[in-house]
Amino acid sequence: MRAALWYGRRDVRIVDIAEPAIAPGKVKIRVVWCGICGTDLHEYAAGPIFIPVTPHPLTGQQAPVVLGHEFSGDVIEIGAGVTSVEVGDRVCVEPIISCGRCAACAIGKYNLCRSIAFHGISSPDGGAFAEITMADERMVHRIPDSMSYEQAAIVEPAAMVVHAIRSSRFRVGDRVAVFGAGPIGLLIVQAARASGANGIFVVETSAVRREHALRMGASIVIDPTREDAAAVIAEETGGGVEVAFEATGAKQALSTAIAGTKFGGQVVVVSVWEGDATIQPNQFVFNEKTMIGILGNCNNFPETISLISSGVLGVDSMITRRIGLDDLVSDGFDALLGATKEHVKILVSPS
Amino acid sequence: MRAALWYGRRDVRIVDIAEPAIAPGKVKIRVVWCGICGTDLHEYAAGPIFIPVTPHPLTGQQAPVVLGHEFSGDVIEIGAGVTSVEVGDRVCVEPIISCGRCAACAIGKYNLCRSIAFHGISSPDGGAFAEITMADERMVHRIPDSMSYEQAAIVEPAAMVVHAIRSSRFRVGDRVAVFGAGPIGLLIVQAARASGANGIFVVETSAVRREHALRMGASIVIDPTREDAAAVIAEETGGGVEVAFEATGAKQALSTAIAGTKFGGQVVVVSVWEGDATIQPNQFVFNEKTMIGILGNCNNFPETISLISSGVLGVDSMITRRIGLDDLVSDGFDALLGATKEHVKILVSPS
Repeated sequence: MRAALWYGRRDVRIVDIAEPAIAPGKVKIRVVWCGICGTDLHEYAAGPIFIPVTPHPLTGQQAPVVLGHEFSGDVIEIGAGVTSVEVGDRVCVEPIISCGRCAACAIGKYNLCRSIAFHGISSPDGGAFAEITMADERMVHRIPDSMSYEQAAIVEPAAMVVHAIRSSRFRVGDRVAVFGAGPIGLLIVQAARASGANGIFVVETSAVRREHALRMGASIVIDPTREDAAAVIAEETGGGVEVAFEATGAKQALSTAIAGTKFGGQVVVVSVWEGDATIQPNQFVFNEKTMIGILGNCNNFPETISLISSGVLGVDSMITRRIGLDDLVSDGFDALLGATKEHVKILVSPS
Repeated sequence: MRAALWYGRRDVRIVDIAEPAIAPGKVKIRVVWCGICGTDLHEYAAGPIFIPVTPHPLTGQQAPVVLGHEFSGDVIEIGAGVTSVEVGDRVCVEPIISCGRCAACAIGKYNLCRSIAFHGISSPDGGAFAEITMADERMVHRIPDSMSYEQAAIVEPAAMVVHAIRSSRFRVGDRVAVFGAGPIGLLIVQAARASGANGIFVVETSAVRREHALRMGASIVIDPTREDAAAVIAEETGGGVEVAFEATGAKQALSTAIAGTKFGGQVVVVSVWEGDATIQPNQFVFNEKTMIGILGNCNNFPETISLISSGVLGVDSMITRRIGLDDLVSDGFDALLGATKEHVKILVSPS
C-alpha cells in the first residue's frame, strides 16, 4: 500500500510499504480522510520533535515512520477479542498510545503517559497518511450516521481544544484571547463562543485566517504586524482578558498573550514548541497570573464527536483543501508553511 | 528622627528627617523591630524595581524614600476617626497601599491593585527603617500579648507565604520542593509541614540555610552546586513533586523547579525578579504543568498572626541577627548579599 513516511527534516517520501497485519485487540481501518496537523508540520519543518530516531521506549519504533493521526475511515478487519466495533463501522481514532502502568496512566491521564507514543509518530501500527492503518480497540470510536468522514477527521484536534477549555480557568462570561487562527485557534474560537465567552479577541497575521475567525465568532481580530495586540486587548477589556490561548508556538505571541491577560488570569499554551521562550517572571508575580500547558486529549472523544455532530462546533468551513497522498508535501505541508497562510485545514485522501 | 532613605542603587543613607504628621484615619507607630526583606535587598542591589523615580501614580512619592515594611511597634498617636486601635496598642502593619477603585480592588484583591504602592517603598507615610512611621488604620493589626515584637515583625513575610500556599494547588499529602531557604523559603517549609506535606525538598546553596531548613522540617536538602537537584527530586519522588516553590529569583532555580515538578504539577513563583528568564514551553505542554506568580498578601494578616502566636509557624529561630539603624547597610544589606549567606532574617531596631 501507499504511505507517507518521515525520513528526516524536510524529507517525507510517499512509498510502498506492507499493510499492517491484524493482531488480537487491534482494529484495521481503511483511511478515508486524514488531516494535516501542526504537529506534522513541526516534524516536517523542524523535527524530530516527537518522532523517535532511536527505538521508542514503549513501542520500539523509530524513523522512518508513517505520518498522519487525525483521521476517519471504515473498519475492514478486527483482531481476536475485539467487541466494541465491527467490520463496516465508520470510525475515528484517538492517536495516543500509553503504557497503562505509569503514575499518569494509573490516574487515567494517558495523555501524560511517561512513555507516550502516538499514532502516525511512533506507533507500531503505522499512521494514517496511508491507505490502511490500525489501532487498539479502546482508541477507536464509532461516529454517528449524521457525521461526515470529513468532520470525523477533525475530531482529534477538536478533542484537544475541548480538553484545553475544560482544563483551563475559563468560565462563562470570561473574555478570551486566541493567538493564532490556524485549525486549533479557530476551534478555540468556536468552543469559547459555545461556552459563553464575553468577547473573543483573535491575534493572527494572515488576513484569510482573520476572516475565518470573524466568521466563527471572534469579536475583534488583530493583525499583530500592524497593531500592538496587547495594547488593543488591554484597551478593549479594561486591563486584559481572563484567559489567553497561545496556539502559535511563537515567542512573540507568548509574550503578548502574557501581557494581554488580566490580573489573576491564565495563559493556556496549546502549541508545540521548536525551542525556548523568554518570559518576565515579574509579569506573573506582579499580577498573580497563571500559565498551563495542554497536550492532546484525554477521555473526551465521545463528547467531542457529539459537539461536532450536533453543530456546536462547526468544522466544515475550516476545511479549505482536499488533496491526494501524492501531493502531501507540495500541496499540503509546503502550502501550510507558506507565507500567505491561505489554508486552514487540509485533508488528505490516501486512497 | 533618624531614618534610612533609598537614594539610588547601592546608595542608602541614614539621615535625619521630619516625623510624619498625624492625619485623619492614620495611625502613628513607634517602630520596635523592622526586618530586612528580599525586596529591600533587590532595591539596594539592583533597584529601582518597585521604588518610583518619577511621582508614583497613586501616592505621588518618588526617591529618595524611607525603606522598611516588615515591622512591629507601639501606637503612639491616632488620627481623627480611628476606632480600631488605641495609643499603646502593640501592632504590626500590612504594607500594601491600594487605590480602592480599580478592578482588582473592586473584588478585594488589593495586592493586585493597578496603582499599588507599598509602605517603605512608595508610601506618603514613609517606611519603618525609621524611629516613627504611619499607616492607614485598616492596615494596622493588633497583636496578642503572647506575641513578641520580634515575631510580629515576621508576620508580613509569613502572610505572603500563607497566601502563596492557599493560592497554590497544594493539598495535604502532596510532595513539595522549595528553591531557596531564605526567610520566605524557610517559612514555606514550615507552612508546608503544617499543611500535611508528604515530603519537603529544599534546594539551597548555603550550608547554614540548609541546616535551618532541616531543623524546620525539610525531608531532604540539596546543594545544587554539588548535585543535580531535579534528578534527585525525580528519583526520590518517582517523577517530581506536586508543587514547587521558587523563592530565589534565579533563572537556574526556575528551570530546575519546572523540571522537578511532576505531570500536572505546579510551580509557584514567590520571588521578585531582576530580569527575564528562559523557559522551555514544551516542559509545560508535554506534562500539563502550571505556573502561578504570587505577590504580597491579601486579607490574611489575622490568620497569620494566629499561626505564629500559636507556634504553628515557628519564626524565632529564623532571626539570626539584631542590629541598629546605623548598621543597616554594612551589617544588614551587605551581610545578606555576601557569599556565605550565614544569616536568614536580620531585624533592625530604629530607636
